[in-house]
Amino acid sequence: MKPGQTASNTIHLPRGFSFAAVVAGIKPSGRPDLAFAEAAAGTTAAALFTKNRVAAAPVEIGREFVARTRGRVRALIVNAGNANCATGPAGLRGCQRVCEEVARLLGIHVEKVFPSSTGIIGVPFPAPQIVSTIPELLNARAASEQAVRQFAEAIMTTDTKPKLASTCFRSKRGCINLLGIAKGSGMIHPQLATMLVYLFTDVAAKPAELRQLLRAVGDQTFNRISVDGDTSTNDTVLLLASGQSGINLGQAGVQARFRRALLKICQSLAQQIVSDGEGVKHVVRLRIEQAPSQSEALRVARVIAHSLLVKTAWAGADPNWGRILAAVGRSGVAIDPNRVNISIGDQLVCRRGLSCPFDSQKAHTEMSKPSYEIRVQLGCGRARAEYMTADLTAEYVRINAEYST
Amino acid sequence: MKPGQTASNTIHLPRGFSFAAVVAGIKPSGRPDLAFAEAAAGTTAAALFTKNRVAAAPVEIGREFVARTRGRVRALIVNAGNANCATGPAGLRGCQRVCEEVARLLGIHVEKVFPSSTGIIGVPFPAPQIVSTIPELLNARAASEQAVRQFAEAIMTTDTKPKLASTCFRSKRGCINLLGIAKGSGMIHPQLATMLVYLFTDVAAKPAELRQLLRAVGDQTFNRISVDGDTSTNDTVLLLASGQSGINLGQAGVQARFRRALLKICQSLAQQIVSDGEGVKHVVRLRIEQAPSQSEALRVARVIAHSLLVKTAWAGADPNWGRILAAVGRSGVAIDPNRVNISIGDQLVCRRGLSCPFDSQKAHTEMSKPSYEIRVQLGCGRARAEYMTADLTAEYVRINAEYST
Repeated sequence: MKPGQTASNTIHLPRGFSFAAVVAGIKPSGRPDLAFAEAAAGTTAAALFTKNRVAAAPVEIGREFVARTRGRVRALIVNAGNANCATGPAGLRGCQRVCEEVARLLGIHVEKVFPSSTGIIGVPFPAPQIVSTIPELLNARAASEQAVRQFAEAIMTTDTKPKLASTCFRSKRGCINLLGIAKGSGMIHPQLATMLVYLFTDVAAKPAELRQLLRAVGDQTFNRISVDGDTSTNDTVLLLASGQSGINLGQAGVQARFRRALLKICQSLAQQIVSDGEGVKHVVRLRIEQAPSQSEALRVARVIAHSLLVKTAWAGADPNWGRILAAVGRSGVAIDPNRVNISIGDQLVCRRGLSCPFDSQKAHTEMSKPSYEIRVQLGCGRARAEYMTADLTAEYVRINAEYST
Repeated sequence: MKPGQTASNTIHLPRGFSFAAVVAGIKPSGRPDLAFAEAAAGTTAAALFTKNRVAAAPVEIGREFVARTRGRVRALIVNAGNANCATGPAGLRGCQRVCEEVARLLGIHVEKVFPSSTGIIGVPFPAPQIVSTIPELLNARAASEQAVRQFAEAIMTTDTKPKLASTCFRSKRGCINLLGIAKGSGMIHPQLATMLVYLFTDVAAKPAELRQLLRAVGDQTFNRISVDGDTSTNDTVLLLASGQSGINLGQAGVQARFRRALLKICQSLAQQIVSDGEGVKHVVRLRIEQAPSQSEALRVARVIAHSLLVKTAWAGADPNWGRILAAVGRSGVAIDPNRVNISIGDQLVCRRGLSCPFDSQKAHTEMSKPSYEIRVQLGCGRARAEYMTADLTAEYVRINAEYST
């Protein structure tokens, strides 16, 4: 495999990290549900967290720890099966307790342990159960492909597939590796809805450099996907740089290439998350063009992506552009309907706000593909944005309406 | 029946109006699809229109006519089966042509004819077909209960029931009648999604008085319901006052009672629209309390009402309050999760942001009712708002995913 290629079947393992996963007994299925990664001394970090005001305990603690250490992380511990959200002071204490046990066994400061949880909201956090499993977890750690795959599987909740992407690129002084692991978007069990993304690299970088890169790339990828418009209480994206490649991000030519690599890995993980979205049959790439500004292009994209009428039409592969035009109209962006063009695949279906002759069978065939593009030209500017979303199927409703009483 | 009571089986017919409906052949079913109402000379009017920037031809023309005549309407013509939206200049000419024919036959000014359309977006408007049916339509008009019911049925698209509400109240000088007719919220055929509401009364009122009342009452009723969050391109609410009761809105005690009557009729029609919403099994009345302001209470209500995870949980009668709390958290309102209480029916299920012991079987039974209440106390103010919405069922998706290709 060539450097620069992305695939889930070959893993470019960044130096300076080891991984592990075990069964802590939180998932009712009895599958592995506790994952761990250790990072070499000197590893720098940047993180993005949910903007939901209802934030889970690990989000509050992780945010505080990363701020206090100014971006230094030595260990990552993630459980699936319990979100540790709406669990009050006991949830915070439980999360702290888990971090302390990891710190004690590794001989590091507790604030260098980064916690994450995903699972049910409002159920007491089983800290003792997790703490008693930590020695076994740490013993299992290895810098191997197999350990990475076990990590990716342990953090799954209702995901149907583990989500991995990795790449490497050469600079004059050697090779830089980047590995991403994610979970998210499947929500078969009610109340699960979290996206977790962990990015590991062996480049050497200051936390401030990582923060800037991660914010920019996150905004172009994870902030531009949506399955159902519900923001989780636990969403977390963490980027760790071990520096073990010996190559500094500041060296000539490295930063631009690293940024491209990071963008590619995040795009791949974002697409994997949407594709594995619960009940999803069609992934739709929205391209909004000719907008007054990029934020207005994104606003139009989000209104289209969250319209139930649009999403259900996509489920039926129905090219009824009238619903898209009506969504554009209520977006709050000052468009003139008479300047709006809409294309499905490479076919124009609405020209200047009016129906134009098109081959509806061809459009239906395009929309029957697992993934396709819809382009909306607003005719009122030069800004553009892309957004990735999915259809809304009866399967989504069936799964999320299953009740626990 | 006592004055003041609302029912769809007894109609309080306001003096000064006659009604009619016929088959123009626009609906493929061959059912009546063209409705008409005539208003006595001197009738005053106020109207509310969709805020969607993609507005149908009759919305543009109706808005212009009501402005030009300063609130004088003598006739109302409504077709179902074609929205006359995204139909360009030809659609505007067709709508104008229909109004001209009504005006010619009645001997009134064209600007006193109020047009409405509901149906498919982006299909050419069949003006000649409608124009040729107008003489028959006008001949059929009558000031009778039967004619009112025919009007209500002719404007239905995918509604399963006609929607009527009427009331009367006595003042010293006699009786004032108020009648409302609406359609909306059923969307079995793709691209149909319009709410039309017509309100008829025999009180005497200035257009400015009507506008003020209608805006206030509309804001408390039709602006606080949602089935799927998609704003139609054709939404219209029209209030007509014939003055034929001889009683002036300005007389002592009349205005307050008229306002209450108008609120009651609009509440009834709003509830009928949500209940007949496509695929709806449960109507949910959201009561948001202890908000910093009313607009923030409404913002929280709308985010809850439009959350797919919340709506699908309702479909399954599942009391998972975590989804409601997560929706509150992402509403953008500055709440403290530790102060939020949530009740389903009369049972507290979340206290200060945490799980509290509750009878989940009882909650499930409450949520199995066709209509129930969910109360959210934000703990950060004294403002409140009510909002009416519905669950999201697989039936909704099935119906709206049916494709026409």
